[in-house]
Amino acid sequence: MRTTTGWAARGPRTMHRTTLQRRDLRPEDVAVRIDYCGVCHSDLHALDDHAAHGADREGPLVPGHEFTGVVVAVGAGATRFTVGEAVAVGNIVDACLRCDMCLGGQENYCREFPTLTYGGTDRRDGTPTLGGFSREHVVREEFAHPLPSGLDPAAAAPLLCAGITVWEPLRALEVGAGTRLAVVGLGGLGHLAAKLGSALGAEVTVLSRTAAKADDARRLGADHLLLSTDEEEMGRARGRFDVILDTVSAPHDLAPLLELLALDGTLSQLGHLGPISLETMSLLVGRKKLTSAGSGGMPRTAELLEFCATHGVTADVEVLPSSQVDEALARLERGEARYRLVLDLSDLDLDVG
Amino acid sequence: MRTTTGWAARGPRTMHRTTLQRRDLRPEDVAVRIDYCGVCHSDLHALDDHAAHGADREGPLVPGHEFTGVVVAVGAGATRFTVGEAVAVGNIVDACLRCDMCLGGQENYCREFPTLTYGGTDRRDGTPTLGGFSREHVVREEFAHPLPSGLDPAAAAPLLCAGITVWEPLRALEVGAGTRLAVVGLGGLGHLAAKLGSALGAEVTVLSRTAAKADDARRLGADHLLLSTDEEEMGRARGRFDVILDTVSAPHDLAPLLELLALDGTLSQLGHLGPISLETMSLLVGRKKLTSAGSGGMPRTAELLEFCATHGVTADVEVLPSSQVDEALARLERGEARYRLVLDLSDLDLDVG
Repeated sequence: MRTTTGWAARGPRTMHRTTLQRRDLRPEDVAVRIDYCGVCHSDLHALDDHAAHGADREGPLVPGHEFTGVVVAVGAGATRFTVGEAVAVGNIVDACLRCDMCLGGQENYCREFPTLTYGGTDRRDGTPTLGGFSREHVVREEFAHPLPSGLDPAAAAPLLCAGITVWEPLRALEVGAGTRLAVVGLGGLGHLAAKLGSALGAEVTVLSRTAAKADDARRLGADHLLLSTDEEEMGRARGRFDVILDTVSAPHDLAPLLELLALDGTLSQLGHLGPISLETMSLLVGRKKLTSAGSGGMPRTAELLEFCATHGVTADVEVLPSSQVDEALARLERGEARYRLVLDLSDLDLDVG
Repeated sequence: MRTTTGWAARGPRTMHRTTLQRRDLRPEDVAVRIDYCGVCHSDLHALDDHAAHGADREGPLVPGHEFTGVVVAVGAGATRFTVGEAVAVGNIVDACLRCDMCLGGQENYCREFPTLTYGGTDRRDGTPTLGGFSREHVVREEFAHPLPSGLDPAAAAPLLCAGITVWEPLRALEVGAGTRLAVVGLGGLGHLAAKLGSALGAEVTVLSRTAAKADDARRLGADHLLLSTDEEEMGRARGRFDVILDTVSAPHDLAPLLELLALDGTLSQLGHLGPISLETMSLLVGRKKLTSAGSGGMPRTAELLEFCATHGVTADVEVLPSSQVDEALARLERGEARYRLVLDLSDLDLDVG
């Protein structure tokens, strides 16, 4: 086994530094020294879930599923990477690679369910997977991406989860020049949706509950800010958008958003997972579509990284030493991330005895 | 005023023959002698609603919103039709014709709400509209369609509501050669969805609760029948369809249908109006879309009639004299229509003194 260090859950928002084991490299594996790992809303959910049910689980919970780093070892049969290469890994690290979804490049929707980067179960040896809040991860090489040289590794880390989560629907819904795109919520997902939508040529409107975000929205590439708390403004915007990416993580009513869609427009709900209630009429009038999406497949992730390198797009990040992970979790929960908090894992090399 | 005869609601499934007034022709109006009018599930809902709240309403309820007939009088400014021309009218008879939806040919989604063929309110004189279970209707000429000469007027009548209700989503979702189309429910809407989908070149599968409909499904153009009550067969069909048109009028769970969709597939719910409950995950995995649609605009209706004339598509109908309207309603409610019941209104010319 390979020994490394990481941050494991002690409580719902409290992590402790601990020694972790990674598997010895299989022929198709690479070992990645993790330099930067983004902090994602999913991590909060996973920590809550672990605090509620953790006693039933084997092993620690180590969150983190959007990271960048450097290849430090290569399996005997691995051919895609050499030691020293910069790489990026997202929220899945394995899949069956035989089903229609995998063969179609949508390993995220693998019929046998993909192996999650953390909180999952390795599909060969049955061990629990441990995430990127650690100094090293071992992954099957198909699930690591070369990090284009133009991208800052700290600011690129959030592309691997927040970025691909908005990129897949942007591409699937063919957002481009002429598309009237609305982005609801300006957080980790939303700020990347605004940047990427703008880089794709769309006319971007950010919906926010506060006018204080207007300057930020414009700086991120938005053409307009629409105040969702202003009923009159919302009324005037009825029927205005072809595509709405809804990145709000709290439960909320979809009806006012569906009202904003043009004929045949699509609302993609990306931020909140859970039960949906709506009236058929809110879809019927205007043949509106409701959809969702979750993370991404390997081809689209590679495409995103190339696109970002070409267009100079990365996340707006604030980098914290990983020893401040508790503070990062608390700030994310309070909505204080502008716009993604990223842990610098290099402090795990220090001996804190 | 113009005097005619029709069938008005006495109870939820009981009609009585009565004398009705139609307005004198405005310049842009045509008067249509109604020969055939289809009986639609909406008529049952309208009758139920009228029985429950009828005392609050002005005037009688005369159902019927898919009819064919002949122009018998033309307003002073009407230019589209001459007396004697065969025409067809659907479920709307007026709209603002100024809003974006009307200007885009989607008068059915008029921002000021279209004037319904019955149960609505005339947008000029404020009188209640009376439907096609009568011998004459007066409509603004933009809302009448020339009936192509190749189409049987009795079998064409259901195209104006059941037909356009499935045609609009078929076209909006670009169903054609290569599309794997499923049609759920083989009734008035479903049998036309199968015929039209097949004529558009799609590979059509009918989902039904009973194998007894297999022969009918094939005769209507379906390539396959899928038994929705057979869990094993449903499991094998997971991920198989690009588009599902769901024409079932009773409330039902959408999750098993969403399971059948391929990546980026769309479920269009057409038969049931009401609250929808589902889990985000049932859309997320595979980026599936849920949508709906209702009746159609004038350009698509004209397109449908031309398509049907070219491809020899009409509804499978059973024609009853209008004096049997109560029986028709009862049979529709019992699910005994194969596949659309149509009233022949010519018996209203007889003096039953």
